[in-house]
Amino acid sequence: MPSKPWAVVSVVGVGLIGGSLALALRKAGFAGKIIGVSSPETVRAALDRGVIDEALPLRDAATQSDLIYLAQPIQRILATLDEIDAHVSPGTLITDAGSTKAAIVARAGKRIRCGRFVGGHPMAGKQTRGVAEAEADLFRDRPYVLTSHDADLEHWIQRIGARVVILDPEEHDRLVALTSHLPQLISTALAGCIAASNGAARVAGPAAIELTRLAMSPYEIWRDIFATNQESIDAALGEFIEKLQQLRKQLQTPAIEKEFERAAAAAKSLRQV
Amino acid sequence: MPSKPWAVVSVVGVGLIGGSLALALRKAGFAGKIIGVSSPETVRAALDRGVIDEALPLRDAATQSDLIYLAQPIQRILATLDEIDAHVSPGTLITDAGSTKAAIVARAGKRIRCGRFVGGHPMAGKQTRGVAEAEADLFRDRPYVLTSHDADLEHWIQRIGARVVILDPEEHDRLVALTSHLPQLISTALAGCIAASNGAARVAGPAAIELTRLAMSPYEIWRDIFATNQESIDAALGEFIEKLQQLRKQLQTPAIEKEFERAAAAAKSLRQV
Repeated sequence: MPSKPWAVVSVVGVGLIGGSLALALRKAGFAGKIIGVSSPETVRAALDRGVIDEALPLRDAATQSDLIYLAQPIQRILATLDEIDAHVSPGTLITDAGSTKAAIVARAGKRIRCGRFVGGHPMAGKQTRGVAEAEADLFRDRPYVLTSHDADLEHWIQRIGARVVILDPEEHDRLVALTSHLPQLISTALAGCIAASNGAARVAGPAAIELTRLAMSPYEIWRDIFATNQESIDAALGEFIEKLQQLRKQLQTPAIEKEFERAAAAAKSLRQV
Repeated sequence: MPSKPWAVVSVVGVGLIGGSLALALRKAGFAGKIIGVSSPETVRAALDRGVIDEALPLRDAATQSDLIYLAQPIQRILATLDEIDAHVSPGTLITDAGSTKAAIVARAGKRIRCGRFVGGHPMAGKQTRGVAEAEADLFRDRPYVLTSHDADLEHWIQRIGARVVILDPEEHDRLVALTSHLPQLISTALAGCIAASNGAARVAGPAAIELTRLAMSPYEIWRDIFATNQESIDAALGEFIEKLQQLRKQLQTPAIEKEFERAAAAAKSLRQV
């Protein structure tokens, strides 16, 4: 249960994730005020859709908030952490939705003195971006990583239907390198190989279509992720290449059947979490 | 236009592909008889669903057919090619739906004297198998590879809504190694890495779910593919690993942005074919 009810929540960066968080809180019964901090075009769209109640500059929003939710790109989150602490009331909860955690939690550790910071990462999203795509159920049945316990935050994350997973920042970054950043690079590499092969597009079936969908992601969201999780991504790529080399050697041996069985079991269990 | 109308078509192996071909021919206006050659359980299910008109042993079916459509696993197709020619009328068209083409076309070249053989590979399928899953629109808007021209066959492939692509067998095998066999091994390898990493399943989001779906494919359909396309699969794995190593080196350089752009363009163009 929350220690005291939140009266004001500010969402900084009202895109797909920030907008969905606002809609999800409202749907889950949050009765206080939701302030949006974003570009003029975005706040206009968010106000029009009823995603936020009010738009304010960061400082004015921070001063009156019980929760400040940073849903910006990673480098913008880092920049916001550099300046926000001067404007919050003592004990104000600040959290974020950045895709990597170690760099952000380290920066918050240096900069957040008056407020208190808990890193967050909802494992949710979709192909399209922007507040127009925001939806109240985006987080439902998805893991939502927090880098430390916080009763208030866990209470609301559960109310919006997500599953709280507590992980330290380095462990989070190591795991998402494997489950999210590696899949992106795999898809980009596969699409690159198909592009380089004369005629492959003519015979592309469902498998090629499915495995190259992620390759259409815009690079701008990946720049910050690569910059703040290089070591873990490099390690995940190394493990994956090693596994491919192993399958390559086993291609006509009975050992590959066991690999197929283990992989199928793992893929099925991912769907049962 | 076909040279003469087919009166009798035999489908050998009435599973997802063979059953769908029968339903597709019927929907496209084929008015002749469709004979099924399969196990007793399968022909019973196929007769019950109205997928075939009659069930016969291979020899009896072959004798009266204008088209014999081999939709068995690859090794079974090879075995059927060893025995079928003795039972067909002169000029009977024999085709197949096997996932690799060089081994099958080579075998047909040795064994088919009385009939004439055109290798085929519809780039269609779904996760589930068996005649119960067969559907008349399975091939619609999908590439359908033939290893040589044949007016009758091309006529009907177009009528069932598929797109004829003529490729020589080696070129086919080289291309599907990249667009189909490599994606399977990528998915199996990724699921294997996730299985080996303690805790990764807890944070698996949409990307990991999507890229591990193929890993649930049963090995039995892959054994024959690996046995008959080893060289091209090895080459595709080599190219892909090289591309991953390149991205790994470029991870924090401006060059990776160009790679993302090229890959995104390729992925988009796959969807526009």
